[in-house]
Amino acid sequence: MSNIEIHVTFPPNASDADGVIDDDCSFWIRQESIVLIHPILIGGNWVASHASRTFQATNPQTAEAIAGHFPVSSWADCEFALEIAASAFDMLRELPSWKLAEFLEHFADRLTDRSIEICELAHLETGLPLKPRLLDGELPRTTDQLRQAASAARLASWCRPTIDTARNIRSIHAGLGPVAVFGPNNFPLAFGSISGGDFAAAIAAGNPVIAKANSSHPGTTRLLAVEAQKAADECSMPVGIVQLLYRLDHADGVKLVRDPRLAAIAYTGSRQAGLRLKEAADTVGKPAYLELSSINPVIILPGAIVQRGDQIADELLASCLLGTGQFCTSPGLVLLFANADSEAFINRLATGMVNAANGVLLSKSVLDSLVRSVEVLIGAGGESVCGGAAIAGNGFRYANTLLKTDADTFLSQPAAFQTEAFGNATLCVLVDNQAQACQVVQSLDGNLTGSIYSDRNGDDDGLYHLIEPHLRQRVGRLLNDAMPTGVAVSPAMNHGGPFPATGHPGFTAVGIPNSMIRFSMLQCYEKVRENRLPENLRDENPNAVVRLVDGHWTRKPLGIPN
Amino acid sequence: MSNIEIHVTFPPNASDADGVIDDDCSFWIRQESIVLIHPILIGGNWVASHASRTFQATNPQTAEAIAGHFPVSSWADCEFALEIAASAFDMLRELPSWKLAEFLEHFADRLTDRSIEICELAHLETGLPLKPRLLDGELPRTTDQLRQAASAARLASWCRPTIDTARNIRSIHAGLGPVAVFGPNNFPLAFGSISGGDFAAAIAAGNPVIAKANSSHPGTTRLLAVEAQKAADECSMPVGIVQLLYRLDHADGVKLVRDPRLAAIAYTGSRQAGLRLKEAADTVGKPAYLELSSINPVIILPGAIVQRGDQIADELLASCLLGTGQFCTSPGLVLLFANADSEAFINRLATGMVNAANGVLLSKSVLDSLVRSVEVLIGAGGESVCGGAAIAGNGFRYANTLLKTDADTFLSQPAAFQTEAFGNATLCVLVDNQAQACQVVQSLDGNLTGSIYSDRNGDDDGLYHLIEPHLRQRVGRLLNDAMPTGVAVSPAMNHGGPFPATGHPGFTAVGIPNSMIRFSMLQCYEKVRENRLPENLRDENPNAVVRLVDGHWTRKPLGIPN
Repeated sequence: MSNIEIHVTFPPNASDADGVIDDDCSFWIRQESIVLIHPILIGGNWVASHASRTFQATNPQTAEAIAGHFPVSSWADCEFALEIAASAFDMLRELPSWKLAEFLEHFADRLTDRSIEICELAHLETGLPLKPRLLDGELPRTTDQLRQAASAARLASWCRPTIDTARNIRSIHAGLGPVAVFGPNNFPLAFGSISGGDFAAAIAAGNPVIAKANSSHPGTTRLLAVEAQKAADECSMPVGIVQLLYRLDHADGVKLVRDPRLAAIAYTGSRQAGLRLKEAADTVGKPAYLELSSINPVIILPGAIVQRGDQIADELLASCLLGTGQFCTSPGLVLLFANADSEAFINRLATGMVNAANGVLLSKSVLDSLVRSVEVLIGAGGESVCGGAAIAGNGFRYANTLLKTDADTFLSQPAAFQTEAFGNATLCVLVDNQAQACQVVQSLDGNLTGSIYSDRNGDDDGLYHLIEPHLRQRVGRLLNDAMPTGVAVSPAMNHGGPFPATGHPGFTAVGIPNSMIRFSMLQCYEKVRENRLPENLRDENPNAVVRLVDGHWTRKPLGIPN
Repeated sequence: MSNIEIHVTFPPNASDADGVIDDDCSFWIRQESIVLIHPILIGGNWVASHASRTFQATNPQTAEAIAGHFPVSSWADCEFALEIAASAFDMLRELPSWKLAEFLEHFADRLTDRSIEICELAHLETGLPLKPRLLDGELPRTTDQLRQAASAARLASWCRPTIDTARNIRSIHAGLGPVAVFGPNNFPLAFGSISGGDFAAAIAAGNPVIAKANSSHPGTTRLLAVEAQKAADECSMPVGIVQLLYRLDHADGVKLVRDPRLAAIAYTGSRQAGLRLKEAADTVGKPAYLELSSINPVIILPGAIVQRGDQIADELLASCLLGTGQFCTSPGLVLLFANADSEAFINRLATGMVNAANGVLLSKSVLDSLVRSVEVLIGAGGESVCGGAAIAGNGFRYANTLLKTDADTFLSQPAAFQTEAFGNATLCVLVDNQAQACQVVQSLDGNLTGSIYSDRNGDDDGLYHLIEPHLRQRVGRLLNDAMPTGVAVSPAMNHGGPFPATGHPGFTAVGIPNSMIRFSMLQCYEKVRENRLPENLRDENPNAVVRLVDGHWTRKPLGIPN
């Protein structure tokens, strides 16, 4: 880059309204020798970062840089954000929750109003299809999630008020403090650090968010943050309820996580980076909710293949290639019983992969990681059925890839064979018998999901009951006759699972109100005077929230019989 | 010790019934040169430990060893216990929960039947008063806890079944796997590794327990384990549902925690040992529920002192000396406003301490630790008001101790001044004004409890509302006009709090059913065939458990309108 970077310091209170920054909160002047850097969102204002350097997003379809320079923040930015987040939290504690709900709803409205621009930029930065994926799928999901979180905040349906009237002990889940949200590359909106499920859950539970954008779509994140801040202003939210940093050096990320002003972190991304943050959080006893990696085993029992092998192969093909395989729940491992039907199944799947377009990957690092992961799988003894190589050209593409191996080979190196090949690559494991099937399942690490396809007439039921207990304890969500991709925003959902899929097997990242509990602490009040209690624990129950009173769920005030 | 220790290996299936071990499952022959070692409980049998060495309990009232040699297990014992616990868990998953309830109730009955013997031995090993503490307080609390856990298992009131009928997604909390329970020294029964709250919660949630006895009361733990195993036999529990090891070397403890067959740990004890286990659990992403340390700040506002200073001083005295100050919730830090009333308050408290008997401490290590902690507090600038030294003689006693300091001194070394002096020592911090009071509270680490005493007519209300927000976020349980000792086994209780009081601010160790959730994973079923679902998620709801169905709590089967 031949340009000279100039770090421009704005007056600390410079804001949209002051006219220092243009209508979109971008600050963008390019001359031959001047590059101005996008400001960050701190304390309700778009301010210049104390940047150590800058970075640009890349169009994954062309491998070309996208106009716009974003700052890599130094610690000074984190310090500023933490200080403001701490006072924002103090103010949030006093705010009625309908105000939070209002903010989330205004934000959702704004995202809908600006959906085309946001999705076009997300498409440019991620290569994900504009339609139906971003515009018809991910954006409405994002706004729906924000509205569900708003409703949960308004109804206090998440905070489990529990009252023991005889002893006058009352407890409730309440906000924890500032939460840092580290968003992933693969869902720029629905899991975005300043728009997605973790964000919505943290805010609705009464916590300020410090968002760390994913470096692969900073521009999209900027647009989301612009709308979040405008909504916050409209709704008179505490200053600094949402703040945005684009990128941090690893050391500053760790320092941020360890800082006592930060209460918790939410992270979705690579296992390696996530474990670094987890370690930092663990040493200071801080909740860290992580979604790290998952290969989402799909087990197809022999009867199902006989009954409807072609149909399942086509379902699997679609699931594997959805979003070019870049879903947290993409099926990376398929367990089949070795026989002629399964060979035909694999052939049909491979033919489908060869005939399908090779989608674009999110970034060069995803491509590089996929190349390395497939090398590991092949190095361990996986045979290539189709694909297995990057595709020449400017964009980041990898041939749709199917690998296979047998149970003995798999069991000789189960860790290597469970390398997550994030992207459009899937491994079939062929087992000879039910004992081997159980052994393979027992060797699996924790996963987000596990699917079992079986004969519809019950012919596979014996095998199902043999395998299911082993799979059940290793996955957060168990499916029957369905592929794992597609995670409904439902109160009954579990988008979680045992380590290393996530950091704790008891929590879900998707599904409101449960996902909100993560960003709370349990607060008990014993013999506390009535007028000093939080509203939702008071005798009269002014908001008519559902409470567990002496063992019964009720909306009634205390003292009124059920 | 001049005796020769002989490790006797029993036949692996030797049991009570075989007559190899006497009626009490002790194995005890002492001759001039032969010491036999108490067996451990593994796989439903009392078997010889592969002990690396042995230890004895000590009577803290005399500092004399108590007859009976207990093994320090080597890894071979852990390996054996883990293997059996893993298969016990597989069997437990198939067991109806009323069977678990039956077991817990039989166990409670047995403890009641043998209460005098158990409490007498506990008194001998811990020095805790037989009456009222052990016999009238802790034992009934323990059996009550077991019965409450049984009831929660039977009613499935803990596992939060959630159903989304439109999408056919259903989730429920279910057992996690074998849990290692490390019990503390201060509640041999109610928090005992094979009888207490963690034990009851882990079992009732469907998990086998590997109990690690606290080394200060191995004989009591043995009696409890004997009754637990007899109850397990009576109720045909899976072999190895409860197992007991007496002591481990640190390295084996860490290895046990990291072992993939173990699903979670519960630990109550010193911060140092707890953090070592936490680190081991964290690196393998395993839930670790820890209760580490707490100084339980008690804030007495000026109006309360004026109004009823003597009464509060007497309450505080009783709370500080209860169990010789060896409660997790003992008030270790008292915040007072510097004035003549507070001086009088301190004098009354000190006089009370001087006049009260100096209770016996649980062990030499508690005494040593108390000596060191008071040294740290004095080293930081704390002034001794009374006490401050160990008491000569055979037993483990320390003079009832009151220290004081001013806010400036406290704030110059807040970490040192928050050293937990576990035992009969308390520190008063005198602040000059409300700003200092807030600063002191803001400097506090996470605690289990915080109490605020205020004027009953509202004169302190302004101060209360200034201080409360800072205290609220730092404690699990907030009390008004009450001392923190005494932790009711109530569904609304929180015996938990922010780190370093515990390892996670969202969970409670006391209070059923909430404490059970700790030992569970969230299991989601999507499109799973009806006959393959766990009973409590089936359409017909055969056990009539309370479920959250499409947003409503109901006991009805699906399809029946509310």
